[in-house]
Formats: sequence, structure tokens, C-alpha cells
Amino acid sequence: MSTDETTTETESKCGASSSTETTESKCGASSSADDSTSNCGASGSSDGDEEVGSTVEDFDADPGRLVAVGLGPGEPEGMTSRAKTALADAEHIVGYTTYVELLPDEITESADDIYSTPMCGEVSRTEEAIDRALAGNDVAIIGSGDPNVYALAGLALEILESKGGTASMVDFEVVPGVPAAQSCAARVGAPLVNDTVTISLSDHLTDMPTIESRLHATAKEGFTIAIYNPWSRKRRANFEKCCEILLEHRDDDTPVGVVHAAGRDDEEVEITTLGELPDLGETDLIDMTTTLLVGNDETYVWDGRMVTPRGYETKYDY
Amino acid sequence: MSTDETTTETESKCGASSSTETTESKCGASSSADDSTSNCGASGSSDGDEEVGSTVEDFDADPGRLVAVGLGPGEPEGMTSRAKTALADAEHIVGYTTYVELLPDEITESADDIYSTPMCGEVSRTEEAIDRALAGNDVAIIGSGDPNVYALAGLALEILESKGGTASMVDFEVVPGVPAAQSCAARVGAPLVNDTVTISLSDHLTDMPTIESRLHATAKEGFTIAIYNPWSRKRRANFEKCCEILLEHRDDDTPVGVVHAAGRDDEEVEITTLGELPDLGETDLIDMTTTLLVGNDETYVWDGRMVTPRGYETKYDY
Repeated sequence: MSTDETTTETESKCGASSSTETTESKCGASSSADDSTSNCGASGSSDGDEEVGSTVEDFDADPGRLVAVGLGPGEPEGMTSRAKTALADAEHIVGYTTYVELLPDEITESADDIYSTPMCGEVSRTEEAIDRALAGNDVAIIGSGDPNVYALAGLALEILESKGGTASMVDFEVVPGVPAAQSCAARVGAPLVNDTVTISLSDHLTDMPTIESRLHATAKEGFTIAIYNPWSRKRRANFEKCCEILLEHRDDDTPVGVVHAAGRDDEEVEITTLGELPDLGETDLIDMTTTLLVGNDETYVWDGRMVTPRGYETKYDY
Repeated sequence: MSTDETTTETESKCGASSSTETTESKCGASSSADDSTSNCGASGSSDGDEEVGSTVEDFDADPGRLVAVGLGPGEPEGMTSRAKTALADAEHIVGYTTYVELLPDEITESADDIYSTPMCGEVSRTEEAIDRALAGNDVAIIGSGDPNVYALAGLALEILESKGGTASMVDFEVVPGVPAAQSCAARVGAPLVNDTVTISLSDHLTDMPTIESRLHATAKEGFTIAIYNPWSRKRRANFEKCCEILLEHRDDDTPVGVVHAAGRDDEEVEITTLGELPDLGETDLIDMTTTLLVGNDETYVWDGRMVTPRGYETKYDY
């Protein structure tokens, strides 16, 4: 994951500049190259720099379209045809630098403009996308996985509303993608075939007592659990607490799939146990690009794969 | 959804017949044309017909490959490039008739053989796929959505094991797809952007007390809830019970997205409320192809979209 892009402070909301190939950022916080696992959540004090400015009144043009596109795991092969078409049709593509870098050349070359910012700029980046659409451009805002999974589909609608706009005004559309839980599950076999819950350990937007309560409630109920954002240097306590809670409800030898950077060059896959998991927190395997897949009481490891039985064995003779 | 295909009883495990274009079924239960929403879960007595027979010892050939491919929502545009490549590379494609019919012609025409059965044949269909791979063919077993979401990835591994085979022997691989929860969420905006749980109301493989307990636990904890398999004529009580439980924990006016047959010709989308949901159970909108997206206490409807705030509004000024 690269967060070492040089960022440029600029006031331009870019609604007007549609023809030049610029990569600009109005992200107040500079990314520190030695901490690729940090995000804005870890540095609350810089959040205040992100403030939504212009409203629909500031734009004279007929609005263009705004589409939120999920890229899936990252590699171009993991994108749907619909996502590729949406990006090919977009005049402007807006996204987090890492995701923009994952796009195939034919897509980035066909766009009139690409606007990317480092990780910390969710709100300003989303506002930029909206402003560009309100200024008359057809805009795609991109993210890995699916726009509905810890992603920007909702933020886009919230900001549109705050600007006095409507979703219909920009023909707002969501193009779904393969979420990380499923991309990562595929790497380790069949860990998630029954009722499953996804929980993020990031306490940036959800407080830790809520996260803990959700972990307790679902670990008790036999869900398989996909854990997003398991670890950052500033949030290691959440990971440790999570392991502790899961171990209260499940055995030490419960299988856990650990998938780092699914679909990217630095992909790493390991199947471990809940008992071993806390120690892995100290390794490079677990960072903000890692997804954990926690088995239930019936999950087992066979021939290097995690298998959560669906229950067919109680119904059929095999 | 079509389940009116004429089925043919046959003993052939098809490992040997790789060049003819046959569509055969060894599904013991006949599909009743007037009940397209039934599945084997509803008719437990026919389950016994599905029994796994041959073992690895019965095959002399070097095994081929077995890949479980998720098609996503159904329309070809919703498939990933990787899924298309996997299907193009497969010599045999095995799947539920409805999904086979959704495949683009170029894929079905390039396969040496297609084997499809109606809904009730999960086990025999999966075994057929495995037998064909063990007999030396490269086989893709397909399903809508993702192979890890209430699907056959796990069953394939379980049956392989029961036959004395291994996953490595057939280079078993899972190609993920966009799950129904995300395909459907995209249709209604941004209902699922926070911690989310998926629960199936089918009590074929999970008993109803477990399902009820999971609904209680997660409705209490503020998860958004994606409900699969909400309704069949033989399982209406589960739907009614589910509505009752959700209404114990959430307000009558909680938004619920109802998406029927996402990505197919008969797609229908409606945003309703938890209070109105029970009555919709009596309409064609809710059947086994419908996914329900239940908002949490903060979810609201704006400009025809469901929006579940991520919590940015507590951190940013917009």
C-alpha cells in the first residue's frame, strides 16, 4: 500500500477544471510514509480540516452523473463488467490513491481527469466528486470492495443532502463489487457459508463499547465473523480486546483465516487458530489491509482449507 | 425463475461422457411447476434420495480441476472478469438450471458439456461436479452471488473429503462473486455501510430456534441486517416470526429495502418500513429470490434511497 504520494494543498474544488490530468489533494493531514496502516481515524485532531463548503447554488451547469463504483479485491480481474463500463463512461474518476493505482491503464487513460487523495481524505474526496458532478461532469467515485461495505455510498448521499442537492439530480447510482469478506474467504476455502457478520475494529466512527458488545453478541450466537480493519499501530488495543472477547466464547483451536492485501502484489494468506491470533498482531501479516475470518464451533481445517459445514451432513448420507 | 425443466433419472455420474451436450438430472424430487419458490428444504422426505456414491478409487484418470464460481447477481454484467475466464476455461459447467440459463451464450457454447438440475439437487449436483473432475475434466460449479454465501463451496469440500479425495487433488479454487446482500443494497442506495449481519430464514439446515436467537441478538446490537430466503409457501411462519422479532427491537418506521430477483428480468425494488413488512409477505414481491435489507435505528429514507449514516456527521462539519 502506498501512501507516500506528495500532496498539494489547494482550494480548488475542481468543478471547473475538467481537462487537465491533475492529482491534487486538499487533505489537511500529511501521510507519514512509515505508517502505511494509519488512517484519519487514528488522528482525530486533523479531522476538523475537512469541511464541506459549496452548495448546489454555487453551480450553474446542468449536473452530470455520480456513480459509486466498487472495484472488488483490487486486481482488475476482480472487477465486474458493469464496474468497468461505469468507469469507462465516467469523465472524472475520484478515489483514494491506492485504488486509482490499481485501475487498468485503459480506464485511467480514457478518463478526462483523475483526482486522487491519500487515505485520510474521505470527506473532502467525496465532496470533490459531488462538486464535479454538480458542475456538469459524469463522475465515478471508486473504492475497493463494495460501496456499501464500510465505504462511501452513504457518505456521498449525506454530503449531497447537506449541499441542498438530491440523489436524482446526479442520477446517483451504486455499482456493487465483491466485498473483502468474500474475496478473502475464497482464498481460504469455505469459511463463511452460513450466517455471517462483518464487524470493523475501527473505532473512528463507532465507539469501542459498541464494537465490544457486537463481538460478544455474535460470538455467542455461532455466526462466522469477518473482521475488517483489525489493526493499526494506534489501535492495537482494539485487536487485543477483540481476541480476548472471541476467546471467551470460542475454543482456542477455532480456525481463523488471515488474508492480507487480497488480490494485490503483497497478498499473504494464513490459516491460524484463535489461540495463536493475538501473537500474529505483532507481525506484518495483520494491518489495515487484512481481513480476519473467524470460524464458528463447527469450522475445521482440511487439506489447507477452512470448511464451515452448512449442515448438509445432518440431512444427507455422504 | 424457471423450475419446469423436464428431469431425467439417470445413473450416469457422467465422469465418462465429456463430449456430448446433455442436460441430465439425477434429482430424485420432481419440481412442481406451480411452486417456483419451493426448494428441497421444504420437502424433507425427498432428501434421502440424495446419497453420495463413488469414491476416488472408482476413477482411473488424472483428476481435472474443480472451481466454484460465483456469478454475482445474475446478469452477465455483474460477473467478474475472473469468473468469466474460469467458465471459459472449464470443460464442464455444472449448476442449478436457473443459473445456467443466465450464462452468456459465448460461455455455454464454449463448454464441452453443461449439466444442470433444478433447485432441489444441491448434493447430487455437487457430487456430479466432483465426479467429473475426478474423471479428468476441468469443471466449474456455478451459483449466483458468492460461493461462500449460503452456497456450495463448503459442500464441495465436504463431499470431496467423504469420497477420500483432497482439495489439492482437483486444485480446488473459489472464484468470488458479488453477494446478493450487496447487489440488492446497491439498488436501494446505502443501507449497509456499517456492521452488517446476513441471516437466512431457511430452516432446512439451521433450526428455527437458532435463527430466532440470532435475529434477537443482532437486532438488539444495531447491526443492519440482510435477510436471505425470507419466504416460501411452506415457510411463511419463519417470515412472520422474523418480522415479530425485529419489531420487538426496532421501530415500526425502520426502513426496509425489499429487492426481488436483483439483476434479473423480474427485478422489483421497494423501500418499505418494518411495520408494513408483514403484509408484504402476502405479495409476489417477497419470495425465495428476495433479499430484505433492514435498517438500524439511524437509517433513513431520502430521495428514494435508504441511507445508513456511517457516523461521519459526528466527526465532520457538513
